Amino acid sequence: MIKSKYLENLIDALTILPGVGRKTAQRMAYALLQDNPEKSLFLSDQLKNIDTKIIKCENCGMYSDFDPSMSNKINCPNCNRENVNPDLVCVVESASDVYTIDESTNYNGYYFVLQGNLSPIDGRGPSEIGLDKLEKRLKEINIKELILATNTTIEGEATAHYIKDIAEKNHINVSRLAFGLPINGEIGFLDSETISHAFNERKIL
Amino acid sequence: MIKSKYLENLIDALTILPGVGRKTAQRMAYALLQDNPEKSLFLSDQLKNIDTKIIKCENCGMYSDFDPSMSNKINCPNCNRENVNPDLVCVVESASDVYTIDESTNYNGYYFVLQGNLSPIDGRGPSEIGLDKLEKRLKEINIKELILATNTTIEGEATAHYIKDIAEKNHINVSRLAFGLPINGEIGFLDSETISHAFNERKIL
Repeated sequence: MIKSKYLENLIDALTILPGVGRKTAQRMAYALLQDNPEKSLFLSDQLKNIDTKIIKCENCGMYSDFDPSMSNKINCPNCNRENVNPDLVCVVESASDVYTIDESTNYNGYYFVLQGNLSPIDGRGPSEIGLDKLEKRLKEINIKELILATNTTIEGEATAHYIKDIAEKNHINVSRLAFGLPINGEIGFLDSETISHAFNERKIL
Repeated sequence: MIKSKYLENLIDALTILPGVGRKTAQRMAYALLQDNPEKSLFLSDQLKNIDTKIIKCENCGMYSDFDPSMSNKINCPNCNRENVNPDLVCVVESASDVYTIDESTNYNGYYFVLQGNLSPIDGRGPSEIGLDKLEKRLKEINIKELILATNTTIEGEATAHYIKDIAEKNHINVSRLAFGLPINGEIGFLDSETISHAFNERKIL
């Protein structure tokens, strides 16, 4: 094989990225080589922060900034949110869902990030995904509504049901995001479960 | 925006990669965060090598390893190729083409890597893409065949013609990769130029 050793290592390293196979990694490596090396150095530095600067908040599960000026050295963008509505907590399966909801809505309450969904068959029970922490937190704080934004998969639904039970035990109102037709969707392309749900839940105009 | 500053920077940095938009960069960042941080550190280190360890060979244009033990500090996998057939030089438009040809054939001669193809309208003349170096090299060495493996685009063809003229001036035989139907291709999906070429160049079986 006629290839630079360092280039070969770079290509190997790029396949770490999800959805990036060898061919794509090669294309990326050559593009980086042709580009300004400062860009690669910038990316290199940001990747290093994964180890040291991006920390999961112990309170809510969000990815947070390491900040030596804070008492717990964590600057959580969720727990320290400004102009927050303290009556609302929205539960999601992963940190990326926080940003998706944040970008799509004007929701201004707190988030609670689970570490995935309940799936006992894969070894993910309530404490593995942080439901014990959520229960503890619901006992400590006084909120008006717990919004369930788990995925609409079987596991996401099971997780939502489990949380509903916890919340009701603690006398907290629970809501679930609405099910129905996605906007800009063509009915012909949708699955029958979604259509059946949207049909049964139809609203009088 | 409710997001970790360092995470935001990481996502920004990942969009440097070709074909990676913001959505993909987000997905990559979360996958890296959930994965072992050592992988990210490995990728970080390899990216740093772009600036210091991966160097273009002045002789042939290949990406080469920095190697302080060599006289010119460059360990070029092409120029220092073992068991090479010194009678052959294959000219390609980019370093990635070297690997594609190397992986697909049993060619064992040298390569010469151009910095792209001739396109005066985009400011790429003969010296910009390294044709002056190629001409100088053809004068110095004594080879039996120059193989043109530039792309089959208009620019690639123009480049091939230009090199053919240089080589003929230096009394060197020139060959061009064969044109025709790609293997495993369906004729119905091919463009008419390819089919017309393959038809005219048909071989008696």
